[in-house]
Amino acid sequence: MSTKPTKDLETIPNPRPGRAYEIEFDCPEFTCLCPRTGQPDFATIRIRYIPAESIVELKSLKLYLWSFRDEGHFHEAVTNRILDDLVAAVQPEKMTVIGEFYVRGGIHTTITAEHETR
Amino acid sequence: MSTKPTKDLETIPNPRPGRAYEIEFDCPEFTCLCPRTGQPDFATIRIRYIPAESIVELKSLKLYLWSFRDEGHFHEAVTNRILDDLVAAVQPEKMTVIGEFYVRGGIHTTITAEHETR
Amino acid sequence: MSTKPTKDLETIPNPRPGRAYEIEFDCPEFTCLCPRTGQPDFATIRIRYIPAESIVELKSLKLYLWSFRDEGHFHEAVTNRILDDLVAAVQPEKMTVIGEFYVRGGIHTTITAEHETR
Amino acid sequence: MSTKPTKDLETIPNPRPGRAYEIEFDCPEFTCLCPRTGQPDFATIRIRYIPAESIVELKSLKLYLWSFRDEGHFHEAVTNRILDDLVAAVQPEKMTVIGEFYVRGGIHTTITAEHETR
Amino acid sequence: MSTKPTKDLETIPNPRPGRAYEIEFDCPEFTCLCPRTGQPDFATIRIRYIPAESIVELKSLKLYLWSFRDEGHFHEAVTNRILDDLVAAVQPEKMTVIGEFYVRGGIHTTITAEHETR
Amino acid sequence: MSTKPTKDLETIPNPRPGRAYEIEFDCPEFTCLCPRTGQPDFATIRIRYIPAESIVELKSLKLYLWSFRDEGHFHEAVTNRILDDLVAAVQPEKMTVIGEFYVRGGIHTTITAEHETR
Amino acid sequence: MSTKPTKDLETIPNPRPGRAYEIEFDCPEFTCLCPRTGQPDFATIRIRYIPAESIVELKSLKLYLWSFRDEGHFHEAVTNRILDDLVAAVQPEKMTVIGEFYVRGGIHTTITAEHETR
Amino acid sequence: MSTKPTKDLETIPNPRPGRAYEIEFDCPEFTCLCPRTGQPDFATIRIRYIPAESIVELKSLKLYLWSFRDEGHFHEAVTNRILDDLVAAVQPEKMTVIGEFYVRGGIHTTITAEHETR
Amino acid sequence: MSTKPTKDLETIPNPRPGRAYEIEFDCPEFTCLCPRTGQPDFATIRIRYIPAESIVELKSLKLYLWSFRDEGHFHEAVTNRILDDLVAAVQPEKMTVIGEFYVRGGIHTTITAEHETR
Amino acid sequence: MSTKPTKDLETIPNPRPGRAYEIEFDCPEFTCLCPRTGQPDFATIRIRYIPAESIVELKSLKLYLWSFRDEGHFHEAVTNRILDDLVAAVQPEKMTVIGEFYVRGGIHTTITAEHETR
Repeated sequence: MSTKPTKDLETIPNPRPGRAYEIEFDCPEFTCLCPRTGQPDFATIRIRYIPAESIVELKSLKLYLWSFRDEGHFHEAVTNRILDDLVAAVQPEKMTVIGEFYVRGGIHTTITAEHETR
Repeated sequence: MSTKPTKDLETIPNPRPGRAYEIEFDCPEFTCLCPRTGQPDFATIRIRYIPAESIVELKSLKLYLWSFRDEGHFHEAVTNRILDDLVAAVQPEKMTVIGEFYVRGGIHTTITAEHETR
Repeated sequence: MSTKPTKDLETIPNPRPGRAYEIEFDCPEFTCLCPRTGQPDFATIRIRYIPAESIVELKSLKLYLWSFRDEGHFHEAVTNRILDDLVAAVQPEKMTVIGEFYVRGGIHTTITAEHETR
Repeated sequence: MSTKPTKDLETIPNPRPGRAYEIEFDCPEFTCLCPRTGQPDFATIRIRYIPAESIVELKSLKLYLWSFRDEGHFHEAVTNRILDDLVAAVQPEKMTVIGEFYVRGGIHTTITAEHETR
Repeated sequence: MSTKPTKDLETIPNPRPGRAYEIEFDCPEFTCLCPRTGQPDFATIRIRYIPAESIVELKSLKLYLWSFRDEGHFHEAVTNRILDDLVAAVQPEKMTVIGEFYVRGGIHTTITAEHETR
Repeated sequence: MSTKPTKDLETIPNPRPGRAYEIEFDCPEFTCLCPRTGQPDFATIRIRYIPAESIVELKSLKLYLWSFRDEGHFHEAVTNRILDDLVAAVQPEKMTVIGEFYVRGGIHTTITAEHETR
Repeated sequence: MSTKPTKDLETIPNPRPGRAYEIEFDCPEFTCLCPRTGQPDFATIRIRYIPAESIVELKSLKLYLWSFRDEGHFHEAVTNRILDDLVAAVQPEKMTVIGEFYVRGGIHTTITAEHETR
Repeated sequence: MSTKPTKDLETIPNPRPGRAYEIEFDCPEFTCLCPRTGQPDFATIRIRYIPAESIVELKSLKLYLWSFRDEGHFHEAVTNRILDDLVAAVQPEKMTVIGEFYVRGGIHTTITAEHETR
Repeated sequence: MSTKPTKDLETIPNPRPGRAYEIEFDCPEFTCLCPRTGQPDFATIRIRYIPAESIVELKSLKLYLWSFRDEGHFHEAVTNRILDDLVAAVQPEKMTVIGEFYVRGGIHTTITAEHETR
Repeated sequence: MSTKPTKDLETIPNPRPGRAYEIEFDCPEFTCLCPRTGQPDFATIRIRYIPAESIVELKSLKLYLWSFRDEGHFHEAVTNRILDDLVAAVQPEKMTVIGEFYVRGGIHTTITAEHETR
């Protein structure tokens, strides 16, 4: 497995496919850049999902989140992007991504995006 | 963009218009005046909304909240006013504004106002 | 306006009558007497309501809560009494009063009473 | 009124019988014995109920909880027993008893039992 | 009763079979091995269930959780395994098992699995 | 023993006179009146002392603190007064009284007074 | 007494001049302007002092802190200025002023200044 | 070893006699009786000591604390008694016993007693 | 002033040079790289100092901390490096730098380095 | 470097040998066995030291703490053992090891051992 930042998310088969259980990841070490000023932004990313056929491989998730480090993204856009990428990779029953960003201009911003497969 | 306090809220296009995601702002730096005594009031303003076509620009929100600094407003009125202004500007699917005011007369007051578009 | 304790609650017109918003007061400075022993009781009183035509005036609420200082009341009775008085005065859509009383006999008592207008 | 531990719970008439309000008692000073080893067990007992015609008298509740001090009871059994005794005494609309027991064998046990009258 | 780690869960008859009450165990002392690297993993295991005919014996649960100490298990798999074993042993009305694992790769993982008997 | 508020503090002989141990009382149920406006003030009173020949009787302390309920006192003065009264009554080696008053005018006031016998 | 913001601090005689006791004020409602950008800054101001002949009058302190609302001050300068003004007004034995400023540029700043009279 | 409550404290040789290290026990499960009313009292007992030749055996300490369950003791006396008994049994370099008692009469009492061997 | 990351720290004259006051910065947004693996590390950097002739300019500090983003540094080395750079730039009376690093290998590391000018 | 548990602690040269700075490790993932019953014990180990010529390599520390997993140790002995091993390996100016063990017999035990080189 690579140890370089990458947008390629690895998945592994769900070890208990018949049950609608929840997996939650809390990742306080997320950073990207402000697309307007180029200055660093920091956030805690929280991911919760109910898997279908496959689950996210943990080390792969770490490399994926690392891959945003040198890219410019708005708060609203990057949270939705992470949700879209993860949904595409693991095809979950349901998934929520929450981005809790550090204070900018005296304001603390949190974005919560959810995907549900019919 | 202006760096003066202003009631003109700027918006930008929603970067992920097809999804009903939530944006939350926590702003602990709000102050206005008591309309009866002229003395300063302080509050934390919390804003949560599900955007439709557009979203609030963050710096513009800071200048908007600043614009109340020298104005007299009752707790109940100013919380509803902020909701009305934000609804008019971003036309959200749904929006909640919460004003948590500092203790006056031994009483801590919180106002919660919600708007939902059919 | 009086600065003496009084059971007369003042109200003012609701500044935003068309919207079902919530007002919450947290009052940690409530004291009355135990009707059995005459000894002081202490409580935090929390009031939450959705106003209809009028709202409670904040200073008047302070004087109202003060008016119980020298009166004997059981925990269950005084919490319901505050709810009844406030409902009579402001005629809210819905109102909740919570009395959180200090430890007596090793037991911490909380009373929660709710009124809803059809 | 007795000042000895007793299983006889005293009740008094509900001072506001027409309203479905909630009474909550938090009692961190509960102890009984382990029926297997005879060693002391400790718990916080939480009681929440909606009264019908009568309410529990507070000092009587203290004596009732004290009465378990020298008796052997399993966690699951004693929590249900307290609920059954209180339901028989006050005939509430609805009642919940929660027993939060101290760590035994590295495990913290909480029992939650609920009674609802049709 | 054995004092060795074992996968054999003991049960005892439910002392209050007619009522749907909840039993909750919080076990902060769980450890197993990472099946990939062989290194120790640590977790808090939380178990909540509504018993039917029988309940888990507490000491037996301690020995059961101990039995994973030298075994390799993935987070998702072991949480579901504990749920499956407990369901098989006590046949509950409903049961939830939560595994809160310590930080690995900067990410804190929580697995929540639930079983409900029709 | 009286059950009326009184400034007469009762003492009992120190049960372990040869050792310089500390006794601490935390009393969150203190109230008096503002000498300027006549309105109620509230405080938590904390007392710490190293006894010499005698110690404060607990129920007597409760009645003593109650005795301020209808009296007007400034924050600074009442905290020092409590220290002076207690020092006169128990003649301790050392004593500290802390008065933590509720917010007035947006300001939370704490007074800490200490007495040390040579 | 004035109800307008003013730099004139009122003092009153120390009610217990013979004892070195401490007075502490916590004022979470401080705001001034950034002298560089003109934008609002917010802080909690904490004041601790041992009085000599006189003490600060509480309402006067409120009006004094209010007087900075429309003035530009750097964090380091305004905290020292408050200490200097208070020392000049009350001539304390010892005084500490702490300014805890809200996050700017991702950095939370606290200034602690102390004055001791020989 | 006995499994009955006993005042006989067992000790074992200090495994690292040459070093002045500290041992701390926090015991939230202490109960005795009020010598005046016969009603149960509850406390958390904290013990900290620097051992000399021997240390307290943990199970023996549990049985020792249990032995107060049916005895009447005042707060100040029982805390000093526990210190005296432990000092006699382990002959430590230094030992502190803290008794944190539950609220009685609205007052929370903490006793701290210390022994130091020259 | 530059808006690019830079090791050049700007200083400004101390606005109150005659007093030994303390300035504290808490910076939760620090990241650099692991010099061994190249993977990102995260930390909160806390800086406390007593200024002499000059103080750190806040925006300059932000750019300085940003300048480590793409550099490899060990925890112990980078904390001491920040202290050395700041001491060289502001020549303080005394300065402390604390680096609180996120969990790696199940271990949370904190480095505290202090400089004192004679 | 090995990835097996080992008592061999690796050290690396202190990157800033001229300064008496502090390194702190908090390790919540420690487990060993009770030497009497063979049952697992759990603890958080905290290590604080001022290095001289060398510092502990972080991964090596992880493997060292892991090496106790299948060994029987008393609380007091294992905490002192870890201190002795670390002192022998890094020869620090000063070092403290704290072992915070999970509840056994209703008692929470903490051991604090310190070594200081003259």
